Amino acid sequence: MQFTSDNAAAVHPSVWKAMMAADAPDAPYDGDALSRRLDAAFTDLFERECAVLWVATGTAANCLALAALAPPHGAVVCHREAHIEMDEAGAPGFFLHGAKLLLADGESAKVTPQTLAAVVDPIRDDVHQVQPHAISITQASEYGCVYRPAEVAAIAAFARSRKLGLHMDGARFANAVAHLGCSPAEAAGDVDALSFGFVKNGAMGAEAIVFFDVEAARTIRYRRKRAGHLQSKGRFMAAQILAMLEGDLWIANARAANAAAAGIAASARDRLLHPVEANEVFLTCTLAEREALRAAGFAFYDWGPDAARLVTSWDAQAEHVAALAAAIAGL
Amino acid sequence: MQFTSDNAAAVHPSVWKAMMAADAPDAPYDGDALSRRLDAAFTDLFERECAVLWVATGTAANCLALAALAPPHGAVVCHREAHIEMDEAGAPGFFLHGAKLLLADGESAKVTPQTLAAVVDPIRDDVHQVQPHAISITQASEYGCVYRPAEVAAIAAFARSRKLGLHMDGARFANAVAHLGCSPAEAAGDVDALSFGFVKNGAMGAEAIVFFDVEAARTIRYRRKRAGHLQSKGRFMAAQILAMLEGDLWIANARAANAAAAGIAASARDRLLHPVEANEVFLTCTLAEREALRAAGFAFYDWGPDAARLVTSWDAQAEHVAALAAAIAGL
Amino acid sequence: MQFTSDNAAAVHPSVWKAMMAADAPDAPYDGDALSRRLDAAFTDLFERECAVLWVATGTAANCLALAALAPPHGAVVCHREAHIEMDEAGAPGFFLHGAKLLLADGESAKVTPQTLAAVVDPIRDDVHQVQPHAISITQASEYGCVYRPAEVAAIAAFARSRKLGLHMDGARFANAVAHLGCSPAEAAGDVDALSFGFVKNGAMGAEAIVFFDVEAARTIRYRRKRAGHLQSKGRFMAAQILAMLEGDLWIANARAANAAAAGIAASARDRLLHPVEANEVFLTCTLAEREALRAAGFAFYDWGPDAARLVTSWDAQAEHVAALAAAIAGL
Amino acid sequence: MQFTSDNAAAVHPSVWKAMMAADAPDAPYDGDALSRRLDAAFTDLFERECAVLWVATGTAANCLALAALAPPHGAVVCHREAHIEMDEAGAPGFFLHGAKLLLADGESAKVTPQTLAAVVDPIRDDVHQVQPHAISITQASEYGCVYRPAEVAAIAAFARSRKLGLHMDGARFANAVAHLGCSPAEAAGDVDALSFGFVKNGAMGAEAIVFFDVEAARTIRYRRKRAGHLQSKGRFMAAQILAMLEGDLWIANARAANAAAAGIAASARDRLLHPVEANEVFLTCTLAEREALRAAGFAFYDWGPDAARLVTSWDAQAEHVAALAAAIAGL
Repeated sequence: MQFTSDNAAAVHPSVWKAMMAADAPDAPYDGDALSRRLDAAFTDLFERECAVLWVATGTAANCLALAALAPPHGAVVCHREAHIEMDEAGAPGFFLHGAKLLLADGESAKVTPQTLAAVVDPIRDDVHQVQPHAISITQASEYGCVYRPAEVAAIAAFARSRKLGLHMDGARFANAVAHLGCSPAEAAGDVDALSFGFVKNGAMGAEAIVFFDVEAARTIRYRRKRAGHLQSKGRFMAAQILAMLEGDLWIANARAANAAAAGIAASARDRLLHPVEANEVFLTCTLAEREALRAAGFAFYDWGPDAARLVTSWDAQAEHVAALAAAIAGL
Repeated sequence: MQFTSDNAAAVHPSVWKAMMAADAPDAPYDGDALSRRLDAAFTDLFERECAVLWVATGTAANCLALAALAPPHGAVVCHREAHIEMDEAGAPGFFLHGAKLLLADGESAKVTPQTLAAVVDPIRDDVHQVQPHAISITQASEYGCVYRPAEVAAIAAFARSRKLGLHMDGARFANAVAHLGCSPAEAAGDVDALSFGFVKNGAMGAEAIVFFDVEAARTIRYRRKRAGHLQSKGRFMAAQILAMLEGDLWIANARAANAAAAGIAASARDRLLHPVEANEVFLTCTLAEREALRAAGFAFYDWGPDAARLVTSWDAQAEHVAALAAAIAGL
Repeated sequence: MQFTSDNAAAVHPSVWKAMMAADAPDAPYDGDALSRRLDAAFTDLFERECAVLWVATGTAANCLALAALAPPHGAVVCHREAHIEMDEAGAPGFFLHGAKLLLADGESAKVTPQTLAAVVDPIRDDVHQVQPHAISITQASEYGCVYRPAEVAAIAAFARSRKLGLHMDGARFANAVAHLGCSPAEAAGDVDALSFGFVKNGAMGAEAIVFFDVEAARTIRYRRKRAGHLQSKGRFMAAQILAMLEGDLWIANARAANAAAAGIAASARDRLLHPVEANEVFLTCTLAEREALRAAGFAFYDWGPDAARLVTSWDAQAEHVAALAAAIAGL
Repeated sequence: MQFTSDNAAAVHPSVWKAMMAADAPDAPYDGDALSRRLDAAFTDLFERECAVLWVATGTAANCLALAALAPPHGAVVCHREAHIEMDEAGAPGFFLHGAKLLLADGESAKVTPQTLAAVVDPIRDDVHQVQPHAISITQASEYGCVYRPAEVAAIAAFARSRKLGLHMDGARFANAVAHLGCSPAEAAGDVDALSFGFVKNGAMGAEAIVFFDVEAARTIRYRRKRAGHLQSKGRFMAAQILAMLEGDLWIANARAANAAAAGIAASARDRLLHPVEANEVFLTCTLAEREALRAAGFAFYDWGPDAARLVTSWDAQAEHVAALAAAIAGL
């Protein structure tokens, strides 16, 4: 019974179907009919003009988006536990040619205007210090916590006041929208670029970089190719993304994953390290308890010496979730 | 009737089948059972130890391989019409942090020890000039021409004599092996790293970087992740490659594509700009002739003002090939 | 008798004097009174607004200037024998984060709109090919040849027509102005940035990057510091440059060097490989002849197997020049 | 009365004299007789073989040294207030092609094996996290505090145990040696490379990168040129450094600066924020007090809202120091 990662989940049948339907000759790279539908599809979804590029990974999506917002001699401010800081092997330094990440604090891996200001405002505006050019926030955060629209708005206002760009790492953007019950536009707020994740939510290997600054996308098309991310059979990338948007599959899948996490959380109220708002549950859990859970057939990651991370997927089976909830309750 | 690019070809049914079979929970990234079989599979194929990484594109494969062979302050020597020079958007400069490409001449986009020496030997060994660290050759070349084992051996001997690494861009390596009728080991010769292409030959989006210098692969695993090329559902990448190796599908597909090209070439002897040894045919062809062919339903690229490029795929249909051959003969 | 390089020349007494006068406490980096006079001094000299940064080397000057004109994924077009291509150890690739140099032809290392167009115009405007963003020309060229104002104007018009920036490597800009007998503004023409060299002309270690696009200088101040080129005792850099501008020392020194070269050339009319317009003389000269000259006490570089390069300096001694002229005439 | 920065100090007369003596024709770049004496001079000084490169700035010295110790995908661990982190404009990210700095804690800007371990040891050895490759320590630290030989030895032992390189930023290495009263070899300990500063100690614009790993210097010679730091009249760089070594001028100057700082500190015992071991004094000092000092003619920097930084130089005048000490005592 898998609760290690939403990366381990299956590919959704509708995604398979769309990929197979795409298996007909068409223009290579992103000249195919499906890739050319992306801008319109996301413009509909977000109710404002956007330009969209597919890439295979969240790391590429994040770093190509950030490359549009900060020059090589600049910096991007993010939470000190952000994925771009902790788990992307220094990819921002690569894609941004040595630009720095500056690290802000905040509960549950969410930054605030105050924690951002604590990083940004002491920086002297002189050539000896690396100047911030953008902020990157994660929706939902590394701990499965969701920025409310008002929180995103406050951060966007801070960004504007300091003349900084704003990027949203939305590897689990769908789960955030599902939790908020608002529109995608409201959940994204006034960001310049969004990495909209699909791989953790039922796709195979396709994420969307959504540029609300349409002009910025033009340059990043060159950067995508230069980074080896322009797949020659791009039609299969676009097909995955369009299938996820079709009939709101993306939100349905996210709701399913969130519901599974909520089911687990309900049996573990006293153990929760963070509010459970998306599809991740962080629990205090002794080594003995973790061993007991594993002995009972549950797979998951440790989170330091005294905690566990449980991640649910769109295809979580109800009986597995119920069994896990019961097992935790019985510890 | 498509003769524009082997990128436009379909995904082979066996590849689809293998991908679908991979759609079960397994470790993310390259920790899954399929990814872990790659080293052994290629070690069998090449009859010597190798370490293998999957990536989605030939550009990523080439540039990650080269990153193992040349430092940021060094250079790689390649043919002036090589894909890494002409069609990868400066990706070598990105992945190698500013290293240069030095351009050698040669018939049909093939370099020789002589043309390489003409580039390498005049370089003064002082700090003012960029020093070469590696050579990259393309098997089959940009014009569909194949290095004989003795030619590769001569280049490898030159590389060793000048203390240079040797990389082979094998986007169409299968077609080269099919033409040569030798073993993969003989077609690759004594290179340090090979980009073994599958996308043009029936896969969807997976290429193999084959490191014969096994230690070099260790570093490149970090570089792959840092470049955003470590897909989280890597099992689907490995599945494609293993399916292509299974039952020698890779060579069967390449033979089919080569045979189609040979069929076209046979009707165009007087027009051939390069020997047809793989799956590409370059023809002298006036504008009026090209218009006539297109009017007859054939799609292909111009190659400058007086020539056409015709590329055949593993799934070329015999009647299309015959029709094209007849049409050319009738011009 | 030194004719190897103008780098070997002495520091002019006025430069020494100015440096010693600068040896009083002042603000570090470029906050000192001398550094703050540079913008105005060059604005006077060029009769239009400019922003000026000092750096210690021509390589740094060229590459920081180019960093303002081309992005990491772009290219700069230059002559295939340009210093930035041949003798700067790949510095453009470093400072421009992997951007390419594209190589144009031209007599005496001078490009023309035609040779530039031959490089620029065939580039497809798609993401697979590296797009040119700027042109760099050298005034005087690597062979000591000078662009006439009309030639610079034609190149600038070409640059504008293709939306390219224009940089001038003026390591020997003073020698060019001395030859042309025009104003510095006329010799520079409509370039965006000029590397104005002083080290070869009597300074110790200071060059000026002159930005006619004043806004561009703002960013490059960060880049200069980031490249370790913001010396803490910058007052000594500014002092050198101001001393060279004072009383037109720069042009007087250049005239002296040019006159020395002309003196040598006059005795070698039949041997000249390039017109002698600045302070370099390239001669056909057999090995035996070079040995004879060296035996007579003249130091200079070979230029391939059958030629010699003779460079004169601001402090060339008349008797040495006369002796060399006589020796050549007597070969 | 200047106490803002040792960068504001004068150039020592012996340095001027040596520079003027170097003003004779010699080979350009670092082929001159003076530059070629550096390896031997430092080998004598450190009693073990070393290879030495001059550069004009501490930033260049630090970053070129680090470029020998960490690859682009790696990281360097330093104190969170280290100069390379705080005041070099992101230069490490530039010279190391995107490598990261990882930040350790420690009193008075000195790290310890414990604070280093707190950064290094939690890093998972997998491709998702940036791996540390080197440590950089500052001798004396940003707060003018000095590592004892035993402290350096403990850090070097830690570095070896984790297979990390070790660099020492010695912008004020001379002041550290003067404080310790030991040999330079003892003060440097078992580091792989040392940035030995001279600019703050009486030189004009020359620092030495001392490689105890002699082989590493070979590569960095290419990197120095590529970074535009190979000055063509390098003889003036070498002259400065040799003059500083001559007759132990470097240590005499440092002793003078340290003594001045000690004189100030003696009158400010209750105000000291850090032990005064080199030539920097950090004092608690209210705004009103600072205004009073400035009104009395003393120039210095604020250090946050409630403190002042006073830096003494080799040429500090005894009466200025006495006056400042008295003024502080009288606050």
